Amino acid sequence: MEKVTLTTFEEMENEVAKLLETADKVGASTWQARVKQQTPHCKFGEEGICCRICSMGPCRITPKAPRGICGCDAHGIAGRNFLRFTAGGSATHSDHGREICHTLYCTAADGNYKVKDPEKLLRIAGEWDIPTEGRDIYDVAHQVAETALLEYGKPFGTQRFLKRANKERQAIWAREGIEPRAIDREVSQALHMTHMGCSSEPEALVRQALRCGLSDGWGGSMAGTDFSDVLFGTPKPIDTEANLGVLEEDMVNIIVHGHDPSLSEMIVEWSEKPEMIAMAKEMGAKGINVAGMCCTANEVAMRHGIRMAGNFLQQENAVLTGAVEAVVVDVQCIFPALGPLSKCFHTKFITTSNIARMPDSEFIHFSPENAGENARQIVTMAVQNFKNRNQDLVYIPKMKQKCTVGYSCEAIIKTLDTVTNSHVDVTGTYKPLVECLESGVLRGAVAMVGCNNPKVRHDYSHIEIMKKLLANDIILVVSGCSAQAAAKAGLMCREAKELCGAGLKRVCELANIPPVLHMGSCVDISRMMLLVTGVAKDWGVDTAQLPIVGCAPEWMSEKAVSIGNYVVATGIETFLGITPQIEGSSQMKDLLYNKVRDWVGAAFTVEMNPEKLCDAMIDRIEEKRAALGI
Amino acid sequence: MEKVTLTTFEEMENEVAKLLETADKVGASTWQARVKQQTPHCKFGEEGICCRICSMGPCRITPKAPRGICGCDAHGIAGRNFLRFTAGGSATHSDHGREICHTLYCTAADGNYKVKDPEKLLRIAGEWDIPTEGRDIYDVAHQVAETALLEYGKPFGTQRFLKRANKERQAIWAREGIEPRAIDREVSQALHMTHMGCSSEPEALVRQALRCGLSDGWGGSMAGTDFSDVLFGTPKPIDTEANLGVLEEDMVNIIVHGHDPSLSEMIVEWSEKPEMIAMAKEMGAKGINVAGMCCTANEVAMRHGIRMAGNFLQQENAVLTGAVEAVVVDVQCIFPALGPLSKCFHTKFITTSNIARMPDSEFIHFSPENAGENARQIVTMAVQNFKNRNQDLVYIPKMKQKCTVGYSCEAIIKTLDTVTNSHVDVTGTYKPLVECLESGVLRGAVAMVGCNNPKVRHDYSHIEIMKKLLANDIILVVSGCSAQAAAKAGLMCREAKELCGAGLKRVCELANIPPVLHMGSCVDISRMMLLVTGVAKDWGVDTAQLPIVGCAPEWMSEKAVSIGNYVVATGIETFLGITPQIEGSSQMKDLLYNKVRDWVGAAFTVEMNPEKLCDAMIDRIEEKRAALGI
Repeated sequence: MEKVTLTTFEEMENEVAKLLETADKVGASTWQARVKQQTPHCKFGEEGICCRICSMGPCRITPKAPRGICGCDAHGIAGRNFLRFTAGGSATHSDHGREICHTLYCTAADGNYKVKDPEKLLRIAGEWDIPTEGRDIYDVAHQVAETALLEYGKPFGTQRFLKRANKERQAIWAREGIEPRAIDREVSQALHMTHMGCSSEPEALVRQALRCGLSDGWGGSMAGTDFSDVLFGTPKPIDTEANLGVLEEDMVNIIVHGHDPSLSEMIVEWSEKPEMIAMAKEMGAKGINVAGMCCTANEVAMRHGIRMAGNFLQQENAVLTGAVEAVVVDVQCIFPALGPLSKCFHTKFITTSNIARMPDSEFIHFSPENAGENARQIVTMAVQNFKNRNQDLVYIPKMKQKCTVGYSCEAIIKTLDTVTNSHVDVTGTYKPLVECLESGVLRGAVAMVGCNNPKVRHDYSHIEIMKKLLANDIILVVSGCSAQAAAKAGLMCREAKELCGAGLKRVCELANIPPVLHMGSCVDISRMMLLVTGVAKDWGVDTAQLPIVGCAPEWMSEKAVSIGNYVVATGIETFLGITPQIEGSSQMKDLLYNKVRDWVGAAFTVEMNPEKLCDAMIDRIEEKRAALGI
Repeated sequence: MEKVTLTTFEEMENEVAKLLETADKVGASTWQARVKQQTPHCKFGEEGICCRICSMGPCRITPKAPRGICGCDAHGIAGRNFLRFTAGGSATHSDHGREICHTLYCTAADGNYKVKDPEKLLRIAGEWDIPTEGRDIYDVAHQVAETALLEYGKPFGTQRFLKRANKERQAIWAREGIEPRAIDREVSQALHMTHMGCSSEPEALVRQALRCGLSDGWGGSMAGTDFSDVLFGTPKPIDTEANLGVLEEDMVNIIVHGHDPSLSEMIVEWSEKPEMIAMAKEMGAKGINVAGMCCTANEVAMRHGIRMAGNFLQQENAVLTGAVEAVVVDVQCIFPALGPLSKCFHTKFITTSNIARMPDSEFIHFSPENAGENARQIVTMAVQNFKNRNQDLVYIPKMKQKCTVGYSCEAIIKTLDTVTNSHVDVTGTYKPLVECLESGVLRGAVAMVGCNNPKVRHDYSHIEIMKKLLANDIILVVSGCSAQAAAKAGLMCREAKELCGAGLKRVCELANIPPVLHMGSCVDISRMMLLVTGVAKDWGVDTAQLPIVGCAPEWMSEKAVSIGNYVVATGIETFLGITPQIEGSSQMKDLLYNKVRDWVGAAFTVEMNPEKLCDAMIDRIEEKRAALGI
C-alpha cells in the first residue's frame, strides 16, 4: 500500500490563481472578486438584528433604537430571522425529498425510472404497515410513494420516520413538544409565527426551529435519502477520484451539479450509451466524461464511481478550465454567476428545474415522465459543443486524489460484519463499532458536514480539523462539500490510515476502510442520524450520551441551519465554524449555545478558529466518555 | 335621517396627542417615537436589494457591487425577496384558515363550537361532492373539515375552490401555469425557489408569487372565511359603532385583538354570561364591555355588533386610555410593544396562541377543545382587574361614529333582491348591480383593503380616497383596517350617501345601504373575489373586464402582498399607496407594474400621493368602461 501525499492548500490555491488569470483574460467575474466588493458586510444583517418582515421598516436595532416600530426587540428580531433561516432550509431539503417521492411514484417496469433496491422498498413498506405479500413491486412502490407524499401534508399525526429513533429520544421529542407534524405545515407555521405581530419570544421561536428542523432530518431529507436508494441503489463502497484533475482534455466534459439524482442518474446513463459515445468520437473527442460538482457529485460518485470535480467554491473554477462543454444543473447551491461566466466560454449552462430558473442559461425542463428524452437532448447538446472549445483558454489543473466513497448505513453494517465472528456474535449490528468506542480504541466519532464559505479559507477548516481528529483516534463520517474537501485532500483513501492514531489506524486496517467515511450528499445527513441512532440502540444509551458530535466548519446555506437544528434535536452536540446571524441577541445566544441542552441534551458551539473548534470537540467527546464511565 | 358629520383627522390627532401625553407621564414607548428612532430606513432593504438568504453575505447591490457573492443581481435579489414576502403572507393567512378548519373539525352538538350556518356547510359539501343526504350535520362538518385540511397538503391536484371562478379566469390560470396545488406546498416551493443557488430569474419568481398568492385567496383565506361563517354565522347587516369612544369609563373593558374568531367569539359569549356580569358589578363596574381591535374587531362586529375600538395604529392608544382591563390577543398584527406598554398600566396583556408568543404577556393557551374554560378564565381575569384601574391615568377620547357592517356576499345578494322585481326578474343574483354598473348609475367599484403604515398619515389615504371615489359614483367594498378607517370617519353609515354622486346616492337610497360596504376582515378579501366573480358571471365577461379595481393605500404586512398577488391574478388591477420593496430592480418593476398584465389581465400601480392614486383608479375604471363599450 502506497503512502498518501496530501494535496496542500498552497497547491490548490496556486492552481486557482492560474484559473483566475483566465478569468481576467476573458473579463469574467469570479466570487473572489465579488467577495471583495461585498466586504464589509452589513453588521445589522450579520448580527441578525435587521428586520424586513413588514413594510413599516426595515428596522435596525441600535442602542438608541432598541426596538423596531412594532416594538419587537433584538431578541425577537434575531429569533424570527433564525426561524425563517431554518424554515428556508427545511423547505428546500424537503422539497428535494418530495421530488424523489414523485419520481418513485412515476416508476414502472418499463419506465425511465425503476426500483433498483426492492429490498429497501419492502423494508420501508413494512415499517409503514403497507402490504407487500404477493404484490407487484411497482404497486408497492406507488403506495409507498403516495404515503410518503402525504407526510408533507397530512392533517393529523406526526412524522412516520420518528419511530426509527431510539425510545429515549422519542420521549424527549414528545416531552418538549417538538415532534414534527406534516413537513410543509411546520414550514408554514414557521412563517406564520414570524409574521409581523406574531411571536417575538425567542424560546418559542427556537422550539419551532427545532421542530421545523426535525421535519427535515427525520422527514423530508430522510425520504430523499431512502427513496433515492430505492430508485438508484443503496450505496456501497466504490473507488473514484476527486478534484479538477478529473476533467479530461480530450473528452467531452459534462459537469452535473446540484442535488437531485433523478437528473444526474439519467445524464450518466445517457453519456454511456454507444450512440452518444460514437457521436462524441465523430466530434473529435475520445469519449464523454461526466464529472460531479457539489452534492450531485456525491450522489453519482456513491452509486457509479463518477468522479468528483469539486465542491461549492469550485463551481466557477470548473468553467474556468475552458474544457467544460456543459454544466447541467437542477436545484440548490448553483451560482447564478455560472450564467454570465459560461458566456465567456463555449460552455453551455443548462438549467432543468422550474425551481431553479436562472438568467443566461438554456432551459430544458426535466421531468420524470420525459427523463430519457430530456437526457438524450442534454448529452447531445454537450457533445455537439465540443467543437466549439477554444483550446487557447483550456487549462486543467492536474490535481486529483483517489478516494473511496459510498458508506451508507447498510454498507457500514456490512463492513462491520466482516470483523464480526459470526459463530459467536450476531451480525447486522453496530456492535463492533460500539465495542471500539467503549474500549477506547476509537475515542469517538465526528460527523462533518456542510458547505464552503468565503468567510474562511476554502476547505481549510474542513481539512485541518479532520487531520487533528484522525490523529486523536476519532473516526469521521462526512457528507456534502465536507466530503469532497476530504476526498480532494487525500483523506478519503485507505492509505490515509497513516495519518491516524494507533487505534483508528488499526480499525481501518481490520475493516479495510478509509478513516473518513463518505456518507453522501447533504440530504444524506439523515443517514448519519440513523447511524447514531443505531449505535445508541446497540449500546443501550441515548444518542446524547454517545461520544459523537457534529461539525459544520464552513457552513453557508439555510439548509445547514435546518440540519443544525435537527442534529442538535437528535441529541448531537453541533460545532459551527461560521457564526450564525444571532449575535445581536444575548437571549438567542444563550438559548442556542446553552439552554436547548436542557431540552434535548445538545446545543451549538461556535468558534471561528478551526484549531480551537477542534479542541472543543475533542473535549466534549472526552466529557461524554467520562460521563459514560469509559 | 340625520346628516353625517365626519370625524376629521385633526380631531383624531388631537385626541391621540392627549394619549401620548399619558405615555410620556408613565414613561411608555409608542410607535410614534419608535418611527423617529428608526428613520431613515435602510435604503437597501427598502429597495429590495439586500440579500440575507445565505451566510456568505449579507450582500447589497450598489453600482460598484452589481452582484452578490453567488453572482445574483439586483433583479434576482429583489425577486426572491418579493416571493418570500408573498410566501410569508400566504402562509400566515392560510394557517389562520387551517385553525378554522380545525375548529370545524372539533364541532359537536354539545361542544364548545357548533355549526351555526348548516345551509352554508351543506352548500360547500355539495361543491365538494361530499354526501349530505340523511347524515348528521356534524358528520358532514367533520368530513368537510378533513377535506379542507387536506387542501393544505394533498399530494396531487389543485385547489378545490378554483372551480368557483368564472371559466375565463380558470382558463387563464391554467394557461399561465399558476393554478395552486396544496397550499403549504406552494409556500415550501417558494422558499425552495428562493434558497441560495435556486431561482434568480424574476419572471419565474413572480409567477410563483402569483401562484402562492392564489393558494391564499382561493385556498387558505377562502377556507378561513367560509368555515368561519359555518361556525359563527354568515354576516348580515348590523349596526354598531367605531373608534376609541366605544370604551366605557364605568365598565370592564376587554379588547379582543388579532384575527381568529375562534377566540373572540368565546370571549364575547362569556362576557355576556350573567355570572360574569354579576362579578363585574361586584367589582364596582356597571358591566362588561368587549370592544374589537384590528381584524378581530371586524369578525365580532359583523356577527354580533360588537363595537370596534380601532385599527392597527390605534392598538397602543387603547391601552393608553388607562381604561382597558385586558387586551386579549391571538395571532398577527399585534404589536410586541403591548407587552411593555401594558406594564405601565393595570392592563393585562393576554396571549393565547402558540403561534404568537410574546414577552411581558400572560399566556393562557386557548384551544378549541377547552375554549369555554379558557374564555371563562380570561374574562374573569379582566373583571377582577377592574379594581386595579388607576383613575388618574384614565382618559377616553369621546370620538365614535355609527356604522353598519356585515355585507357578506350572501347579504349583498339579499339586499339586491330587495330591489329586484321578483315577478319579472330572477332573484339571488348580482344582476341589479350589473345593471347599475352597465347603465353608468354606478361608474364602478373599488375594493379597499389593508393596513395602516406609519410611512403615511394614519388613515388619511383611506379616507381621502374613499371620499373622492364616492363623489365620483364609485361604490366601495372594504375590509380589514380600511373598513375601520371608514367606520371611524363616518363613511360606513347610511347617512354618508350625502357625500356621494347622484347615482351612488340613489343606489344607497333604493337599497338602503351605506356607500361603503363592510365585507369583513383581511381573510375576507376572499369574499371580494367571489363578489367580483359573481358579477363577472352575471355580466357574462371576465373579471379583468369589469370596471372594478382594488386598492391598498396604507398596506404594511406580508399578508397584504399575498393579497395583492391573488387580487391581480384574479384579474383585478391593484393600486398601492406604499411602495413595495422592489424598486432596486427595473425588471421587477416592469414585471409587476406592466408585464403581469399580459399574463393575467391586471397589474400593480404604485403611487404614494393618495390624490393621484385615486385619479389613477378612476382613469382605469373609465378605461374599462370604454373597453366594454359602456
